[in-house]
Amino acid sequence: MRYSRIPDETIRRLPIYLRGLILASEQDQKNISSTNLADYVGIFPWQIRKDFSYFGDFGTRGVGYNVVKLMKEIKRILKLNIDQKAALVGVGNLGMAILAFPGFGIYGLDIAAAFDVNPKIIGRKIKNITIENISRLSGIKKRKIKLAVIAVPRKAAQETVDVLIKAGVRGILNFSPCYLIVPKKVKVITIDISMDMARLPYYMPAS
Amino acid sequence: MRYSRIPDETIRRLPIYLRGLILASEQDQKNISSTNLADYVGIFPWQIRKDFSYFGDFGTRGVGYNVVKLMKEIKRILKLNIDQKAALVGVGNLGMAILAFPGFGIYGLDIAAAFDVNPKIIGRKIKNITIENISRLSGIKKRKIKLAVIAVPRKAAQETVDVLIKAGVRGILNFSPCYLIVPKKVKVITIDISMDMARLPYYMPAS
Repeated sequence: MRYSRIPDETIRRLPIYLRGLILASEQDQKNISSTNLADYVGIFPWQIRKDFSYFGDFGTRGVGYNVVKLMKEIKRILKLNIDQKAALVGVGNLGMAILAFPGFGIYGLDIAAAFDVNPKIIGRKIKNITIENISRLSGIKKRKIKLAVIAVPRKAAQETVDVLIKAGVRGILNFSPCYLIVPKKVKVITIDISMDMARLPYYMPAS
Repeated sequence: MRYSRIPDETIRRLPIYLRGLILASEQDQKNISSTNLADYVGIFPWQIRKDFSYFGDFGTRGVGYNVVKLMKEIKRILKLNIDQKAALVGVGNLGMAILAFPGFGIYGLDIAAAFDVNPKIIGRKIKNITIENISRLSGIKKRKIKLAVIAVPRKAAQETVDVLIKAGVRGILNFSPCYLIVPKKVKVITIDISMDMARLPYYMPAS
């Protein structure tokens, strides 16, 4: 079942809730109230209740939400109940940091391959991943990789994306500060850290 | 004037609009319609109109929004009309990538200092920034630095934040996948790339 009416903004918050629920389950909590979950995730309880109502989980008054059931439900909605493999393209400083990042595992996400153009780093092994020549990108379809993370220079971004889409990739996490042209069947999420930083001053007291 | 009723979600989109407006102004566009701006930024026109209505700019029917005026207004709301200096703490792979990132300038943001604990990299110069010993962090108040970007290992994150707050920092961009305890006067924005990646599979076709 696809919950086609769930707003993107709710989808954006589901991984945050999932992380809070995982923390709660590690502390052997069986049930959790929206107020309690709010403490874990820093989102208002009313927002949590509204978001969960989209997929019909209203919890039980006085008891709250069943932690394990809710975790399973969110994973199913996000399609994280199946292992998802991703390819990293571009292993410069940022790419290295992404390869070393310990946080993907809890969501069942796996960086399964890494590619670069630089002969100096092709063949190097980082955390069980051997960096491959970018010319081998087209073969990722056979390896059941459908997600990609791109950390290439801005100039190379569109070209890389075109190759990835031909190779069957349907979801791309983009770290280049640029807009990418992709067909409708492909989802791109661009992470631009300057945009996140640009909203920090708003919250600061006048000085 | 502080627009206290602007929702956080609208604030999150303002830097996106600002980037689109900058692109439009570079192409000598005097006025822009919400539909046209939508093409630049990938956000629905109705959403754009709603967001802009929070600060009273409804544009002119048939003419659209004045590009320069709107850019100024958004910068003023986000407090980007004054140069904002930030300190980077942690210059590992991720920190290096942040130092090299070319995108801060367009928002008037400036990474003005970088700190690390590693004696091997203290003293190294990257893009006019000499990496300093972390023991010097407490002196950033005098240097009018009120923002910080932290790219330190998870274990060191809370400790780093405590020092930063004592040193007068009021806005923190956090790349450690953890929750940080801060007083109310301090705003933390956590960037967790695994959360962004965790919502990619949702948009992919069933296979």
